[in-house]
Amino acid sequence: MKKALLLVEPKDEQMKALKAKFPTVEFTTDPDDYSDVEIILGWKVPLAKQLLESKNLKWVQSRSAGVDYFPLKEFAERGIKLTTASGLHSRYIAETVAAYLLIENRGLRTVVKNPGVWDDPEVFETSEQTVLIFGTGNIGKEIARYCHFFEMKTIGVNRHGFDPKLATDFDEIITMDEFEAATTKYQVDYVINILPGTSYTNGFFNTKVLQKIEAGYSFINVGRGSSVVTSDLEKLLAENYVRSAYLDVFEQEPLDSDSAIWSSEQIIATPHISGLMAHFKDIFIPLFEDNLEKYLAGEKLHNLVDLDQGY
Amino acid sequence: MKKALLLVEPKDEQMKALKAKFPTVEFTTDPDDYSDVEIILGWKVPLAKQLLESKNLKWVQSRSAGVDYFPLKEFAERGIKLTTASGLHSRYIAETVAAYLLIENRGLRTVVKNPGVWDDPEVFETSEQTVLIFGTGNIGKEIARYCHFFEMKTIGVNRHGFDPKLATDFDEIITMDEFEAATTKYQVDYVINILPGTSYTNGFFNTKVLQKIEAGYSFINVGRGSSVVTSDLEKLLAENYVRSAYLDVFEQEPLDSDSAIWSSEQIIATPHISGLMAHFKDIFIPLFEDNLEKYLAGEKLHNLVDLDQGY
Repeated sequence: MKKALLLVEPKDEQMKALKAKFPTVEFTTDPDDYSDVEIILGWKVPLAKQLLESKNLKWVQSRSAGVDYFPLKEFAERGIKLTTASGLHSRYIAETVAAYLLIENRGLRTVVKNPGVWDDPEVFETSEQTVLIFGTGNIGKEIARYCHFFEMKTIGVNRHGFDPKLATDFDEIITMDEFEAATTKYQVDYVINILPGTSYTNGFFNTKVLQKIEAGYSFINVGRGSSVVTSDLEKLLAENYVRSAYLDVFEQEPLDSDSAIWSSEQIIATPHISGLMAHFKDIFIPLFEDNLEKYLAGEKLHNLVDLDQGY
Repeated sequence: MKKALLLVEPKDEQMKALKAKFPTVEFTTDPDDYSDVEIILGWKVPLAKQLLESKNLKWVQSRSAGVDYFPLKEFAERGIKLTTASGLHSRYIAETVAAYLLIENRGLRTVVKNPGVWDDPEVFETSEQTVLIFGTGNIGKEIARYCHFFEMKTIGVNRHGFDPKLATDFDEIITMDEFEAATTKYQVDYVINILPGTSYTNGFFNTKVLQKIEAGYSFINVGRGSSVVTSDLEKLLAENYVRSAYLDVFEQEPLDSDSAIWSSEQIIATPHISGLMAHFKDIFIPLFEDNLEKYLAGEKLHNLVDLDQGY
């Protein structure tokens, strides 16, 4: 028997189905029952040390797309496979970003920050706008699809450049190297960050990078808080270089309840919810089932992480 | 010379173009220069009595789609034509409604009403939802187009029933009579009101009508405040019969700055801005030009109001 620890607890009928489908696997949902576990569904950072004590551990299926909170180096050294839930959250993150864009363009940020004021807020013409999207994977493509429906121009930024699969979603693709080497400032209305948290992206959006873009844009972060130097962003907001910011992720989470970020008129802050799903288990458990089938058959797992790249 | 009073002041270059194109028309922007005015662009309620003193008045071009603030009876008696800006604002109202829908579905209402709280809000699966849209004109169709992109089901309610032109936007159409006669409750997630302000729609959304829909929906009003009995809506919100409300229009405008509506956790209130445009004059003045050409040629005017129906 192979032992699988399910830190995302399946619904009763899902558990029943798993047990019936995989008779050679012993399923447990008790985090203390980790001693000889081979497979883990989900992860809990405070339990990491304990979970890694199982010498049998060979595969972890993450519930998130980003995996920066895993001990990737130890996984690599011990040959533990890590797979992500990339793709699962794309629709929801795109909806959240679409909400941010329309909140800003329809003047609703100004209104909700000043309840009771009966004045016309500034509004912006969506169909004349350009968005610069850092990250052109599943989430970036889905955000671009929404932006295209809104008749915005979409520019993607990635490490590898143009790829025919991106053609329908992005009007243009530039590489990170091109972005960094550019000598003129980019003219865009929104900068949307969905970069993963890696050593490369750590502190990427600092004053210098944020000023590579012409003043007057709004900054949206639904990637990782670690990729933004928040104090630099706050300074540029105070100078009105950056017009506004929509931040779902932060360097420290949870964000302090008395942080000035919550009350800033220029910032809409949300508690890391952009990818939240109403029916998470209905979609996630089947994804695990598929991958478990592949795992037992010795096939290549879906959404396998390159542990050196970190995504 | 025919005299035209422009209460929406054209930009300098627009005024120059108007004068060059229409040499037989004398343009003024001075509201006190009303004595022998034949044409008025825009309207000002406090000046209504004065504006109607011109015995010459034959045509008013409204800047809005709704015309409930005009003295329609007097217009009818005196044979004054009234044309609307219907269609101009549709895109913007649809964007605002789309913002409301995504704010609610992504849990952002809960978040912005409770800044500093780091908790997962309730979220909803947009693609499983149904919207009931009262009004299937330009604005209703545009809202339905956005809802379809979001993969929501759209049901339109109008006075005249199905029309092939509505087929791409609405999955279903019911008439007001069918709605009122229905004996089972409608199961929808959103009720969106864009009905014009008329004697028929006055106080339409009262407790009885709001309870024709199964509990648990959100109510959006971007039509007219007069069509909703606000105290009835507030009572149903307090009972959680109606889950939340997005209100852009009110029985009394401006809404009192100390109204409980602004601070309610269940309500996002906005100051009648759903149709606000960043470049209003660039689109509105050409619309007036077109209609002025038709007027001078004795042709049928675009967006002519049926003064008895009130829209």
